[in-house]
Amino acid sequence: MATTDGDKELVQLLLTRWRNPETGLDLATEVVYDVFLSFPDSERPNSVVVVLENGTQPFISQQKEKNLTADQNDPAVVRPYAAYAPPGNPQGKLVYANQGKLSDYEELVQNGIELNGTIAITRYGGAGRSAKAINGAKFGVIGVVVYTDPADINDGIVSEEQTYPNSWYMPPSGVERGSYSDHFGDLLTPYYAAKDFTYRIPEDNITGIPLIPTQPIGFEDAKILICNVQVNVYNHRRIEKSSNVLGLIRGSVEPDRYVLYGNHRDSWVHGAIDPSSGTAAMLEITRVLGKMLKEGKWRPRRSIIFGSWGAEEFGLIGSTEYTEEFFSKLQQRSVAYINVDIAVFANATLSVSGTPPAQSVVFKATKQVRTPDNSNSVYENWKLYFNRNSSIYGVIPRLGSLGAGSDYAPFIHYLGITSMDISYTYDRSKTSARIYPAYHTAFDTFDYADRFIDPGFTSHQTVARTAGNILMRLADTLILPLNVTDYGEMLEQMYKAADHEDIVADLRNHNISLAPLQAAIAQFKSAAAGLDQRIASLQEEESPSPLHVRMVNDQLMLLERAFLNPRAFPDEYYYSHIIMASRSSSIATFPGLANAYSSAKVSGNWEKVRQHLTIVIQAIENAASILEPVAQ
Amino acid sequence: MATTDGDKELVQLLLTRWRNPETGLDLATEVVYDVFLSFPDSERPNSVVVVLENGTQPFISQQKEKNLTADQNDPAVVRPYAAYAPPGNPQGKLVYANQGKLSDYEELVQNGIELNGTIAITRYGGAGRSAKAINGAKFGVIGVVVYTDPADINDGIVSEEQTYPNSWYMPPSGVERGSYSDHFGDLLTPYYAAKDFTYRIPEDNITGIPLIPTQPIGFEDAKILICNVQVNVYNHRRIEKSSNVLGLIRGSVEPDRYVLYGNHRDSWVHGAIDPSSGTAAMLEITRVLGKMLKEGKWRPRRSIIFGSWGAEEFGLIGSTEYTEEFFSKLQQRSVAYINVDIAVFANATLSVSGTPPAQSVVFKATKQVRTPDNSNSVYENWKLYFNRNSSIYGVIPRLGSLGAGSDYAPFIHYLGITSMDISYTYDRSKTSARIYPAYHTAFDTFDYADRFIDPGFTSHQTVARTAGNILMRLADTLILPLNVTDYGEMLEQMYKAADHEDIVADLRNHNISLAPLQAAIAQFKSAAAGLDQRIASLQEEESPSPLHVRMVNDQLMLLERAFLNPRAFPDEYYYSHIIMASRSSSIATFPGLANAYSSAKVSGNWEKVRQHLTIVIQAIENAASILEPVAQ
Ligand SMILES: [Ca+2]
Ligand SMILES: [Ca+2]
Ligand SMILES: [Zn+2]
Ligand SMILES: [Zn+2]
Ligand SMILES: [Zn+2]
Ligand SMILES: [Zn+2]
Repeated sequence: MATTDGDKELVQLLLTRWRNPETGLDLATEVVYDVFLSFPDSERPNSVVVVLENGTQPFISQQKEKNLTADQNDPAVVRPYAAYAPPGNPQGKLVYANQGKLSDYEELVQNGIELNGTIAITRYGGAGRSAKAINGAKFGVIGVVVYTDPADINDGIVSEEQTYPNSWYMPPSGVERGSYSDHFGDLLTPYYAAKDFTYRIPEDNITGIPLIPTQPIGFEDAKILICNVQVNVYNHRRIEKSSNVLGLIRGSVEPDRYVLYGNHRDSWVHGAIDPSSGTAAMLEITRVLGKMLKEGKWRPRRSIIFGSWGAEEFGLIGSTEYTEEFFSKLQQRSVAYINVDIAVFANATLSVSGTPPAQSVVFKATKQVRTPDNSNSVYENWKLYFNRNSSIYGVIPRLGSLGAGSDYAPFIHYLGITSMDISYTYDRSKTSARIYPAYHTAFDTFDYADRFIDPGFTSHQTVARTAGNILMRLADTLILPLNVTDYGEMLEQMYKAADHEDIVADLRNHNISLAPLQAAIAQFKSAAAGLDQRIASLQEEESPSPLHVRMVNDQLMLLERAFLNPRAFPDEYYYSHIIMASRSSSIATFPGLANAYSSAKVSGNWEKVRQHLTIVIQAIENAASILEPVAQ
Repeated sequence: MATTDGDKELVQLLLTRWRNPETGLDLATEVVYDVFLSFPDSERPNSVVVVLENGTQPFISQQKEKNLTADQNDPAVVRPYAAYAPPGNPQGKLVYANQGKLSDYEELVQNGIELNGTIAITRYGGAGRSAKAINGAKFGVIGVVVYTDPADINDGIVSEEQTYPNSWYMPPSGVERGSYSDHFGDLLTPYYAAKDFTYRIPEDNITGIPLIPTQPIGFEDAKILICNVQVNVYNHRRIEKSSNVLGLIRGSVEPDRYVLYGNHRDSWVHGAIDPSSGTAAMLEITRVLGKMLKEGKWRPRRSIIFGSWGAEEFGLIGSTEYTEEFFSKLQQRSVAYINVDIAVFANATLSVSGTPPAQSVVFKATKQVRTPDNSNSVYENWKLYFNRNSSIYGVIPRLGSLGAGSDYAPFIHYLGITSMDISYTYDRSKTSARIYPAYHTAFDTFDYADRFIDPGFTSHQTVARTAGNILMRLADTLILPLNVTDYGEMLEQMYKAADHEDIVADLRNHNISLAPLQAAIAQFKSAAAGLDQRIASLQEEESPSPLHVRMVNDQLMLLERAFLNPRAFPDEYYYSHIIMASRSSSIATFPGLANAYSSAKVSGNWEKVRQHLTIVIQAIENAASILEPVAQ
């Protein structure tokens, strides 16, 4: 867990490995930040208590998970809690509020249910963790209980016999811990690296965290909760020192170009899967590369930076601080960021999220790597599970889009660095689990990983081989393996989602035309095609000029930066990427435009639609001008 | 004048020259924007009228300047007006409000003078043009008259015999026109290029322009104004098409590196000096370079882009639109921006403003160029007039700091591109004129320039030689001639201004220490010194690797970008440069810090000081990390 003794030991382990004379890197550094965290009280356990009318308390929620495999009794196991939820002891009538979405509470009110002074019980999923409490408070709810519904995580299975340690399903006492914060990054130092001298906003100015006591519980306890309950929360918030560990391999030809690879180091409990499956992959990749390096057999063309991020579980804090502290040089020099957090959710198929320029290099790598059972290429197997019909390539594996679920978020949303997130995952036809069932509980153990997630750890190997292959391609290929025409396909798709007859009619009624957007996308596609042609002829040259190669690579590398506009979403921390920003509207078009359109339908603020249309067009035109011949 | 027939003719002239087969450039392009301008009514002239108690009007201000040299009768002469001032006919008691600063109005109120319902007469200088009216309106002033005080512009001279056409001094009927706007850039499209489809903010949301009728007059009229006056303003605001003309010379080795050179094309009246002296210099430079180019004798290493900006006089509109439209590629690829607007104010000495990295290249160039009379190097002569004692170099010429007075503003403040502004100017011991006296009047004519500003146009030649020399060095030198250690000296100076015992005591009382700022500056200086050493050894190499040179050049070029923080000054359009932003505080330290400190002394908001201290430190640390070895 972040900033604990275990975390510090892992820092030392990473430093030792990365400084190993036979298998280490060129340089390994620890960077420490002072970050704002939240912990349960060590003396007074949080609880949810049933209170009868006569004042007796026939039931109190379990203080920790049942000790099923000895791991749960480890003194380092943190008791279940909602990080950043305020302390308090509210008592009230219990109301079931589904997933705690705004619409869930609204529905209750519409059905005549009085929410004022109640305790809401909500299930995980559907809304962010903190949103359940933030939404509830708007309706007078005074405390929130969050549980994991067996239907969401266990395919409905609830019995001890059928759950871990007898299967991968969550035991009845399992509780998902988590950060109850809407934003990522250290909450007191948005946009600034959290050093000792750094300006911190007043705690009262923090937004996006619960204002009412909130506590997660297991489904075993959830089913007993009736009528009147009291939520007892004794969490503390405090500033702690959290470390990033940075490992470096210097590039031989272009040391000033960085390929970034990272994962977080902290977990909620043992974290065998989250994040240690990813950390294992990173350590294996660094060991192999470090060995080649130390033996003098290899040195990449570009520099590679490995990051072991601290305090991710509290809100991607370590990675965000890193992007804040080194904003300028990372933005100027980074080729791409590869994230492998939970390397293996399950062993059915690869799963990759990323921006369009990542697609081609991921495809190339996955065609070279075999599945864990050696029956197929990772690429072909992946295509069986996740695919789409591309207007350019036909049926191909489908890359997911990057939200803010792991440390790639500051790299893509704040810095505009082409990013990808890689894992192995399960067959969705076999389970409807929201995530692997032991996620963020005291059952996410080595034993669990070994017996139920990845027996033999062969999927771990596959992910390491895939991510390592991508990494080496990005670091070594003369011309960067980032395909920019693939952005054109995404822009086109987003345009089509906006170019729907109902939307077009609404827009026309307010004198808004999508024609300039269409023209900008056409300009982008033509610029991308032109660059592709110039790259093709460059690749045919026997000894292309180093500066010519660099020029083209800079265009490929910096394209993504043109989609950044730090003034586009002034109300949201960090989000600046016009194409990848978060979207609340259901229309799958450019997020700022989609959100403005959906709210204009209610508020009548069509000026905002006009504004976001301009923002999108200008970003696409800027992106096109990055790809066009540099002197025209 | 912007967007008039004369402007369009000049666009054609530039296109013809820059497309000339013998002396033209590689490419010349016209780019058109739809920008928001303001013009006087062609039928109803603006005026200031004296109104007696019996209703008679014994005096009305002159509709235009006296026709002293026939140029004033040119039908293209726009009548004097305050661009962007609203129409209206307020009438009231006349009050003299000095320069129309906030403090000027406050002083009047303290002296018991009732301002409500009055017309304020103010002189040019001290406050921005629009500020005089904006400030006045806060005190109930209903109209503003602005005149040019002979003490400020004419060394006190007022008689017709002693003024133009008999000397360079402003004739009694001369009126300074100008844009009455606080902001630069097209007022309806901040941050967006003003195309036809572009989102425009509602006119009512424009800030920084007068809300009360305002009119400039000459000192001849000003002295007659007594007691009760009426200001009659009939200005119109409208969107007009304004062009930039772009000229390109393609770089041979690094076409993706841009050296930018520009000046505006529009004037208020004839504009022989402002801007045509600068346009003449630009045309001469492009002619000479174009000739070498077409003869196959020369092609620069890097690309050169020439910009003839439209509508500068209304608020740097053309140049700002250019930076908005091509934000990404300009920010990624621009080495520096050279501005030569008024090339010659007078013929005594060179005058240069710029950021520190510009200093060294300006020094090198000016040592090679001779003064107009060939008596000295431009450098030595310059040092006689403007100098300072540098902690590194001893006595050297002094570069001024860049405000927002001409088209360099969007390049330095919005894009963070190293910028400089070059002119020849007068001997301040011989005149106290605020600016050359015919500035923005109908007397800024060829005859005026020829007889009083630069007889023989030798200073024009000197400026063209100097600017051309700088341009060629930036475009051709293998290692960019930008000295980054010179930034260290400026940071040190700014630190010293903050490290004053009174300030330190105030800060200590609020638990704020400057030590981390000092440490960041030390880190910067050490990083700069290290880079200097690496450059020195690189320069000794016989054939340095092209990518090694490029790496170092990228560090030099992109240093200035690290000082940008688009979130630092959320209330000000465009200003993002932590070191160069505008400062209202009298303390000559980092502008955000200085302003926050000065207001904290009044408001007690020391949190803002803490915040801006962090912003400054983080910017300097980021800048240092750009200069440090790229893989460490
Ligand atoms: Ca921070
Ligand atoms: Ca604009
Ligand atoms: Zn994780
Ligand atoms: Zn996690
Ligand atoms: Zn000018
Ligand atoms: Zn001017």
